Amino acid sequence: MKPMKVALLGCGVVGSQVVRLLREQAADIVARVGAPLELAGVAVRDPGRRRDTSVDPGLLTTDAEALVTAPDVDIVVELIGGTDPAGRLVLRALHGGRSVVTANKALLAREGAALHRAAHAAGVDLCYEASVAGAIPLLRPLRESLAGDRVTRVLGIVNGTTNYVLDRMDSTGASFDDALAEAQALGYAESDPTADVEGHDAAAKAAILAQLAFHSRVTAADVHREGITGITPADIANARAMGYVIKLLAICSRGDRHGVGVRVHPAMIPRSHPLAGVREAYNAVFVEARSAGNLMFYGAGAGGAPTASAVLGDLVAAARNRLAGVSGPPESVYAALPVHPMGETVTRSYIALEVLDKSGVLARVCEVFAAHDVSIQTVRQEGRGDDAQLILVTHQAEDAALGATVRALERLDVVRAVASVMRVEAEDAA
Amino acid sequence: MKPMKVALLGCGVVGSQVVRLLREQAADIVARVGAPLELAGVAVRDPGRRRDTSVDPGLLTTDAEALVTAPDVDIVVELIGGTDPAGRLVLRALHGGRSVVTANKALLAREGAALHRAAHAAGVDLCYEASVAGAIPLLRPLRESLAGDRVTRVLGIVNGTTNYVLDRMDSTGASFDDALAEAQALGYAESDPTADVEGHDAAAKAAILAQLAFHSRVTAADVHREGITGITPADIANARAMGYVIKLLAICSRGDRHGVGVRVHPAMIPRSHPLAGVREAYNAVFVEARSAGNLMFYGAGAGGAPTASAVLGDLVAAARNRLAGVSGPPESVYAALPVHPMGETVTRSYIALEVLDKSGVLARVCEVFAAHDVSIQTVRQEGRGDDAQLILVTHQAEDAALGATVRALERLDVVRAVASVMRVEAEDAA
Repeated sequence: MKPMKVALLGCGVVGSQVVRLLREQAADIVARVGAPLELAGVAVRDPGRRRDTSVDPGLLTTDAEALVTAPDVDIVVELIGGTDPAGRLVLRALHGGRSVVTANKALLAREGAALHRAAHAAGVDLCYEASVAGAIPLLRPLRESLAGDRVTRVLGIVNGTTNYVLDRMDSTGASFDDALAEAQALGYAESDPTADVEGHDAAAKAAILAQLAFHSRVTAADVHREGITGITPADIANARAMGYVIKLLAICSRGDRHGVGVRVHPAMIPRSHPLAGVREAYNAVFVEARSAGNLMFYGAGAGGAPTASAVLGDLVAAARNRLAGVSGPPESVYAALPVHPMGETVTRSYIALEVLDKSGVLARVCEVFAAHDVSIQTVRQEGRGDDAQLILVTHQAEDAALGATVRALERLDVVRAVASVMRVEAEDAA
Repeated sequence: MKPMKVALLGCGVVGSQVVRLLREQAADIVARVGAPLELAGVAVRDPGRRRDTSVDPGLLTTDAEALVTAPDVDIVVELIGGTDPAGRLVLRALHGGRSVVTANKALLAREGAALHRAAHAAGVDLCYEASVAGAIPLLRPLRESLAGDRVTRVLGIVNGTTNYVLDRMDSTGASFDDALAEAQALGYAESDPTADVEGHDAAAKAAILAQLAFHSRVTAADVHREGITGITPADIANARAMGYVIKLLAICSRGDRHGVGVRVHPAMIPRSHPLAGVREAYNAVFVEARSAGNLMFYGAGAGGAPTASAVLGDLVAAARNRLAGVSGPPESVYAALPVHPMGETVTRSYIALEVLDKSGVLARVCEVFAAHDVSIQTVRQEGRGDDAQLILVTHQAEDAALGATVRALERLDVVRAVASVMRVEAEDAA
């Protein structure tokens, strides 16, 4: 059997595990592919660096360009991350007729269209299961298993770092800073946690999920994004008192109107919802489809071995296709649905107000809501004197109306401060 | 575009929904397949019967044989269920070069080998995502996404009826009979509930799951099976007191030794385990893989629309393959692992004994366990006089040793009765 030759770009945490799996699973892979998978080369920045697994030093190269265009390479596995030079290398590989497997969410969320076009033109595969929710098989089920159904909403916990931080805040009462420090000490958060805690990582994944779920082009720039840095122990406690838990959610929704909404922000969800039980750094994606009903996919969202497992699944599929002389389905964006602006999104919201402790305050606050057509579902008055608070939860309202309400509340003389505003989600599906 | 012609066998709860989806999703399906899917005929027993959806009466036929071999049929969807005549019709379709989509777990678990052989010989697809856990995409992820990993264990709640019954017993304290009657009233259980409550349905699904997870031939006859009819409110209460919940599990395991174990029985699992939160008639399958870690797939396990959604996913894939002139991967049973007898299975167990209320009883009972090399982890003495009970949980032990222990306990003069024996599972993964 002639081996399929694999070029590996990057040999860090995930790449090392891919090398290990290719070696340890070699016999199984032959049985599943119909041919062995053999490393043609491993492009790295520093060939002298120590790695988690042994790589034949003769395979290491610093010339990634040359490797992706080497004549004997069949499949390129891109694990460099970021958009440059990863994007350039992936495009060169595709143009040269190599299938590509990548875990690069940022690249897919930004340049997915160009990459898909290149793959289609060359008749090769572009696979990226590992780019969203690590080991959880998600893109293949969304694209293939639900191909005869209509997905109406996707709710995802797709960032392990923020889920760990929020889970610790919920279970121990820790502040955001303390929970983040703990996550950093455990290796769940990077020393610069911006990409995670500000929601950039989740936004890229949300774009990819929305595109596959709705068969429409969505890029990271289309995604409304809010992070979790402003969440206080008081928010966590208020959520708990109301039977909710706070999660950073990627929400992709397709309503009755023409178009889709894609957003990433912290949200309160009922503790009875399956997503509420997703603890620590685990990921989970809850999919609502018209016929299939509610589905949830749960697992490790990151880490070398889990991500490598997803890469290997793609690698086996791409190799099998290549042997058979076919490629998988092309990018599916036939629905071409527009992305709604965030202001048109309809949600319920929780609002915590620090107010003056005197009579008539509630009436004044309620007037502001009424003036903006935002209906209040529940109000709780808490504390006295300087601690006087109003905790409100609204009925469904457009985000723009809610925003205008909050701005008006900030100007209201009886309101000392708008302490917190957070959306309430997933109540219908709980 | 020349349409792909679909023959539908059976037009009951699921078939009606397939007809509806083919109509409602027609435009999307064209975009995804590259050609329309058109019904060539619908084989039914009684063409005059009222159905949930409108079917062109001109398509109805009672001659299923003729339909599956009609020259213009590309794909046969088998939704008759049972092994005969379904098996005969599926084989005829495959021999005649038609791809087949089926939701028939009994057929797959019994005659899967012959069907796969026929599909492979004819170069066509045999798809059965709907046969296990309804709408939950499970077979495709197991077969394809984890293709470069090694699955070590699958724990599944794959029967909605029994999960509903056990959930009601747990949440309301109801007896088995009352919970079953409630499930029957709600349509979750059939008037003859044997196939569900005795574990036959789950055993067929366990065989299919094990085969896909371990790439080895497993049939329903290989599956050790126990039902839930003997579970009492006392068992439920004891489980709760120890932090467990009782679920009917399909367990497929691949240990360090050569071979696999496949079994269906009620088991106590920790309340903190993700499977413990699977309520009502929902299904979920928890997959443990060496590299991917723990994954869980959750959703509706039955029902017309969810099952039809899974059928449509398969139909789109089979149609796309047929247009491209290819077929999916052949049956993967290369690993050829033997199935262990149940006696060699190693588990922990819960044992409830009704005992005489006198001193020395505990010592006598412990002697019996020691004589069979079964180590006790915890003992609780409860009640006095005629209600005196011992509740024991063992460490890991071989099932054969546990069985011998139980038989010896039944003969022991200080033991009035062995009230209950149940395995304790999934503690390591909680």
